[in-house]
Amino acid sequence: MSEPRIDAERFLGRLDAFARIGATPKGGVNRQALSPEDRCARRLLAELAQARGFGVHQDAIANLFIRREGKDNSRSPVLIGSHLDSQLSGGRFDGALGTLAAFEVLEALEDASVEAPFPVEAVAWTNEEGSHYQPGCMGSMAFATGSIPEQWFTLRGHDGSLFADELQATLEALPEAAMRPVGFPIAAYLELHIEQGPSLEDENIPVGIVEGIQGTRWLEVEINGQSAHAGTAALAFRRDAMAAAVRGLGRLYAEIMPRDERARFTVGRFAVEPGAVNAIPERVAFTIDLRHPESAALDRFETLIKSTFAEDASAGGCTSTLRRIFDMPPTVFSPVLLERLHEAADSLRFTSKSMLSGAFHDALFVSRVAPAAMIFVPCRDGLSHNEAEYVEPDQAVAGARMLLASSLRILDN
Amino acid sequence: MSEPRIDAERFLGRLDAFARIGATPKGGVNRQALSPEDRCARRLLAELAQARGFGVHQDAIANLFIRREGKDNSRSPVLIGSHLDSQLSGGRFDGALGTLAAFEVLEALEDASVEAPFPVEAVAWTNEEGSHYQPGCMGSMAFATGSIPEQWFTLRGHDGSLFADELQATLEALPEAAMRPVGFPIAAYLELHIEQGPSLEDENIPVGIVEGIQGTRWLEVEINGQSAHAGTAALAFRRDAMAAAVRGLGRLYAEIMPRDERARFTVGRFAVEPGAVNAIPERVAFTIDLRHPESAALDRFETLIKSTFAEDASAGGCTSTLRRIFDMPPTVFSPVLLERLHEAADSLRFTSKSMLSGAFHDALFVSRVAPAAMIFVPCRDGLSHNEAEYVEPDQAVAGARMLLASSLRILDN
Repeated sequence: MSEPRIDAERFLGRLDAFARIGATPKGGVNRQALSPEDRCARRLLAELAQARGFGVHQDAIANLFIRREGKDNSRSPVLIGSHLDSQLSGGRFDGALGTLAAFEVLEALEDASVEAPFPVEAVAWTNEEGSHYQPGCMGSMAFATGSIPEQWFTLRGHDGSLFADELQATLEALPEAAMRPVGFPIAAYLELHIEQGPSLEDENIPVGIVEGIQGTRWLEVEINGQSAHAGTAALAFRRDAMAAAVRGLGRLYAEIMPRDERARFTVGRFAVEPGAVNAIPERVAFTIDLRHPESAALDRFETLIKSTFAEDASAGGCTSTLRRIFDMPPTVFSPVLLERLHEAADSLRFTSKSMLSGAFHDALFVSRVAPAAMIFVPCRDGLSHNEAEYVEPDQAVAGARMLLASSLRILDN
Repeated sequence: MSEPRIDAERFLGRLDAFARIGATPKGGVNRQALSPEDRCARRLLAELAQARGFGVHQDAIANLFIRREGKDNSRSPVLIGSHLDSQLSGGRFDGALGTLAAFEVLEALEDASVEAPFPVEAVAWTNEEGSHYQPGCMGSMAFATGSIPEQWFTLRGHDGSLFADELQATLEALPEAAMRPVGFPIAAYLELHIEQGPSLEDENIPVGIVEGIQGTRWLEVEINGQSAHAGTAALAFRRDAMAAAVRGLGRLYAEIMPRDERARFTVGRFAVEPGAVNAIPERVAFTIDLRHPESAALDRFETLIKSTFAEDASAGGCTSTLRRIFDMPPTVFSPVLLERLHEAADSLRFTSKSMLSGAFHDALFVSRVAPAAMIFVPCRDGLSHNEAEYVEPDQAVAGARMLLASSLRILDN
């Protein structure tokens, strides 16, 4: 037994090989969950696993587990991984980086003949992206709850395909995989992922130690006024829903993000009725995506949003309603695992930065049933969900080395 | 010869009779231009005209003229009228009031055996509303230019019908009407119309003397930023097209209408891309409907709008473009005719108010080739283009009396 190490050439070659499955002309990847391309990527991972003598397992939602046995195989495994599915015009690294780094960790342990005290498993979660079938994070969500919601089976994809059919075909494409129950005890879960934001690159820091995932609340605001002719109605007679919305949003853009650097406030959808050039809008409806690491802050902002529109709407002769359409409380990752990650970064002499994730990840759901944490590496210009997504080879390898060192520390403790 | 007077009962009965043609269950009218209902209304007006011995004429765009001869029939007629077509869910008074009042004026002259010094004609202009075929005001526009644009003939209505076919059928439905050239000299044009706004009702004034039609400019503003994940992008990294639009619009809502009571500023259409709840908008595009009685003010506001978005967009890392998609300069009605209208109001002891029209009317186009002016009467709650549109019988009759008195003064001068 020698010191296990990441084989950079092999690992980068694997990233290239998987990027060819569903490759797009612009250098990105279209490998949607449960598609033929996704099945092909799963097939390749299973072949590579079998070639090294690892176990291949899947569950009823098609989460794929590659198992390297340890000394005491009755103990719960350490789980590491991410996802292999992509957005329609996705990048080569979102998901694939963490999944293939996890497999590389298994190979590194095998190369060095490490006798782990208990099993280590690499996982590829099903449908993290939610771009083929909604919602995303189906695999990790089912794992965390121990069941598959019945209504998922009748979902149709944007291409008209039935979720149940494509899931079945995906499961059948790996006949050698031993079936497992949905959800089982694990010792810990680690996920390596690209940041999908610019802060690590900007500060030239190779490793982000992710302490949690900020809470997300989606609100739908509707403002109702009265339509009238744009030419005839004087200001005093207007009940302009658009003007009321703009007044309120102007205050919120100025009051939320500029005063709290951890807050995120985004208006992504906006609809106007009747929607004619010369008609004063009688109704506008828009969404607010609100994020913060603290639930109390989300509550405070929601109250502010509600009162702001109530005031601005009534000042403009309109009425407003606010509806919460989605609510995901903040996630706090395991302090014990975060300690291991900091030790690993120190041992590798990597500068690291504690940070929060703005986006959801499979680790969010897994953290509800087991200690979990994440490692981020920089990606160019913060770009993701984009064919131009790019990670420097050295930075990808550094991420895999962090995952290996962290896994070893979990096995040792 | 006696003093000519409006026969209130006959006139109100006529309004009821025409409201039955295309009546909607909610008390409104659906009598779209060149439709079977429109032909039916034209047929009825022609029958009534022939019963009184008036001449019936039409031109190639189906403008319908009812002629009462005068002493010197070689002289250009005084033209009075409006339109008979309605919106899809239109009211009983928009257009019909002015057209039937004009016919009532002819009958009043006839009843009193007035020997007018020159002819008086009532007109029903074709397709004022533009709700069946666009653009609106086709009849008066063709009259003013003396020709019918070729491209109108190949237009399709919202119901798929071909304009050329329906125009032909409409012309053929009045075989007795003598054909006239499109456009001919007239001495003056007067149009009675409902205000389509609340100011007369609000101030309890029965008659508005319309001095002109404000200018209208339609602008399309586009703001381009960069899309990014709503959760990951911190404020400093955002190029949020929506935030830039809101900042600029907030300033314009505060700076234009509140500081100039004659200005009208309306944002009626608003589109966001990509339009996902959790995506920072990379592009917003919206329309601005800008109105003012003075061209210089429109120019000034357009400059302000352009610089506002240029500043707010670039401050937010975005770019903006502004495009003028429609421009109708302000119309100033004939001072001589306005003088006649004031005299008429005084002679009737009607309180009147000088005002501007916010909306377009056929008088706008006619005013380019002849002295023209308009009379407004109140409508309930300012409602128009609505089945609930309503005018008090007394106020409708007062309008007809104003039209008669004004016509007599024009004939006398």
